[in-house]
Amino acid sequence: MPARENGAITNLSSSSDTLINLDHGDPIVFESFWKKMGEKCSVVISGSQSLSYFANTKNLCWFLEPELEEEIRRLHRVVGNAAAEDHYVVVGTGSTQLVQAVLFALCSSASGETPPEPVSVVAAAPYYSCYPEVTDFLSSKLYKWGGDAQSFDKKGPYIEFVTSPNNPDGSIRESIIVKKRGEEEGKVVHDLAYYWPHYTPITSPARFDIMLFTVSKCTGHAGSRIGWALVKDKYVATRMTKFIEVNTIGVSKESQLRASKILGAISDGSLQSSSNNFFEYGRLLMEERWEKLRQVVGRSNIFSLPKYPQEHCLFTGKLSETHAAFAWMKHNMATEDLEKLLRGKKILSRSGSRFGSDQSYVRLSMLGREDEFKLFLERLTAIQ
Amino acid sequence: MPARENGAITNLSSSSDTLINLDHGDPIVFESFWKKMGEKCSVVISGSQSLSYFANTKNLCWFLEPELEEEIRRLHRVVGNAAAEDHYVVVGTGSTQLVQAVLFALCSSASGETPPEPVSVVAAAPYYSCYPEVTDFLSSKLYKWGGDAQSFDKKGPYIEFVTSPNNPDGSIRESIIVKKRGEEEGKVVHDLAYYWPHYTPITSPARFDIMLFTVSKCTGHAGSRIGWALVKDKYVATRMTKFIEVNTIGVSKESQLRASKILGAISDGSLQSSSNNFFEYGRLLMEERWEKLRQVVGRSNIFSLPKYPQEHCLFTGKLSETHAAFAWMKHNMATEDLEKLLRGKKILSRSGSRFGSDQSYVRLSMLGREDEFKLFLERLTAIQ
Repeated sequence: MPARENGAITNLSSSSDTLINLDHGDPIVFESFWKKMGEKCSVVISGSQSLSYFANTKNLCWFLEPELEEEIRRLHRVVGNAAAEDHYVVVGTGSTQLVQAVLFALCSSASGETPPEPVSVVAAAPYYSCYPEVTDFLSSKLYKWGGDAQSFDKKGPYIEFVTSPNNPDGSIRESIIVKKRGEEEGKVVHDLAYYWPHYTPITSPARFDIMLFTVSKCTGHAGSRIGWALVKDKYVATRMTKFIEVNTIGVSKESQLRASKILGAISDGSLQSSSNNFFEYGRLLMEERWEKLRQVVGRSNIFSLPKYPQEHCLFTGKLSETHAAFAWMKHNMATEDLEKLLRGKKILSRSGSRFGSDQSYVRLSMLGREDEFKLFLERLTAIQ
Repeated sequence: MPARENGAITNLSSSSDTLINLDHGDPIVFESFWKKMGEKCSVVISGSQSLSYFANTKNLCWFLEPELEEEIRRLHRVVGNAAAEDHYVVVGTGSTQLVQAVLFALCSSASGETPPEPVSVVAAAPYYSCYPEVTDFLSSKLYKWGGDAQSFDKKGPYIEFVTSPNNPDGSIRESIIVKKRGEEEGKVVHDLAYYWPHYTPITSPARFDIMLFTVSKCTGHAGSRIGWALVKDKYVATRMTKFIEVNTIGVSKESQLRASKILGAISDGSLQSSSNNFFEYGRLLMEERWEKLRQVVGRSNIFSLPKYPQEHCLFTGKLSETHAAFAWMKHNMATEDLEKLLRGKKILSRSGSRFGSDQSYVRLSMLGREDEFKLFLERLTAIQ
């Protein structure tokens, strides 16, 4: 998320000078739903509330607000996207902090010894561009980015991130290395940030040892910085909690209280088939954007987009396909630098090279403002 | 902050079984003030507010809420404890995250190269027990805990943390190494978490290159996890912002909005000399606790406490002394393990050995609940 590049997009006109920033996945698309909900989803926090570092000293994750834990568990039951009954809940300052908490938990020892060499951290390309950065930015002796899981052949311990649906390309994934090597040397972390019914059919409840989720992509409240991990092993959950203790002494209580309210509203609405159903509302929005984008791209042979299979969604009861949070678009000339080409048209995207792929690909956010998305389609049409 | 030890303190009776936890500095003491303020300090956050990662894309610190920056600057002007005019404001998830952001900013390069050897991080003993842990928990190749600044004699670059008033002992401090070596090789970070008029006389506005503050210790809102840095150098502020971007993609907007309200209320109240003056209220509370503790300790020759000079406070206009957030208590028998002795009486404290000092010392929180503090004094009286 290159902060300084994001200067220009607040009030868009169709002026050809306006920069459209589709580089990051700022989930503003759902704002209209929350405006519609009005005061029902407001929270009031008094001046004397939540002074303490602690939320529940009896819980393993002592800074987790009990009502947030309850709403997280309820939402997973309502949606059916994860089996959380046998798991601890660890809350984080966004799932980004939880990624680091997992690395710490799996690679460090309570006695402070470092491993003989850093544990390799891998993911199959194209992989989420933040994994390498988050893994390596402090040059830790505990872990080190190991690149594409498909070509990874180093002996010794490893951690594989499996993002499903995948960021950037929306594909449904499973572990690559465990298939090849068995489970002995490695640990798999499932990043399920996008495994929600507005993005993809829910085909079964996920049952993995470590699963990561985030409010940002679920409800669109990225500013709250709330993520959560479902963790089966008590020791791993304890060490993740330790990481968050040392890194930030817990997680904002205000954000947790608000997230409880928001997740609660989503669960309540999901039991109705009305316009209060967030996932249905979001799914229609995403479907509409994807249809429009496919229409524009389909007008020529310059670009291509991934194709997704039709699946039966247990949540909606309907047959549907993935409407990913990002469009993973390819220029059909393999030598073309697509990010550069789009930048020339004042469209900021993230180059495929950042995801372990090549420069003929870019990742484009599908979650931005409506006027921004329209302008993007106009410019894309003009290129073709 | 050993989370699991903190189980017992919610509803205290004077039962001798009740564990009193004075190990951490949970600032509950100020709760009565915030209750008294009632709805004046409540914040309402609607469901559609602050969805974005961004708060102000035109600001170097792009996730900093403009109203929080304003209230921070106003509070420093009102209190007169820091000259912030020439400084950037970087907000963090508590000042703990800012400590790490500073280390990253001063030791890493934008190109990702690591230094030939880790930069030494030091502080004069007794030093804040979290500095070594925060510096070393990820075994970074960028920096490494170097111990007591007084005995530090390694050549090469270093970072010195100067905490003033000091945690644990409340003393007013300045850099040790710069005095010895000059400023060429090292950088000094001033942690001014306790430089507020309820703890200590404000003798002049601090004018340092990097100054850290936190809402936790200023207002008592530890659950919000909001800290801020005042940073003179643009590059350092940019790199600190980068750290927070990679670590947690910004800082909770809800906490920032609430902190704005709370800091605003404090500034407003400080201009009055009424019971709405938070610092005056807090100062009287702290003074009373210190008087009571000194009375109990003075009854025998078993323990001793630091003595603080009388100084003229520019904020209150009065002569007063430090009433530190922690009592740094010594057992007058140098061989005694004071933490263990107190633990036997069901008082949890933090041993001097954690602060680079010896086991005849402990750090005791002066910021806990009133009933807890009373019970502590009763038990301390019984020991003597």
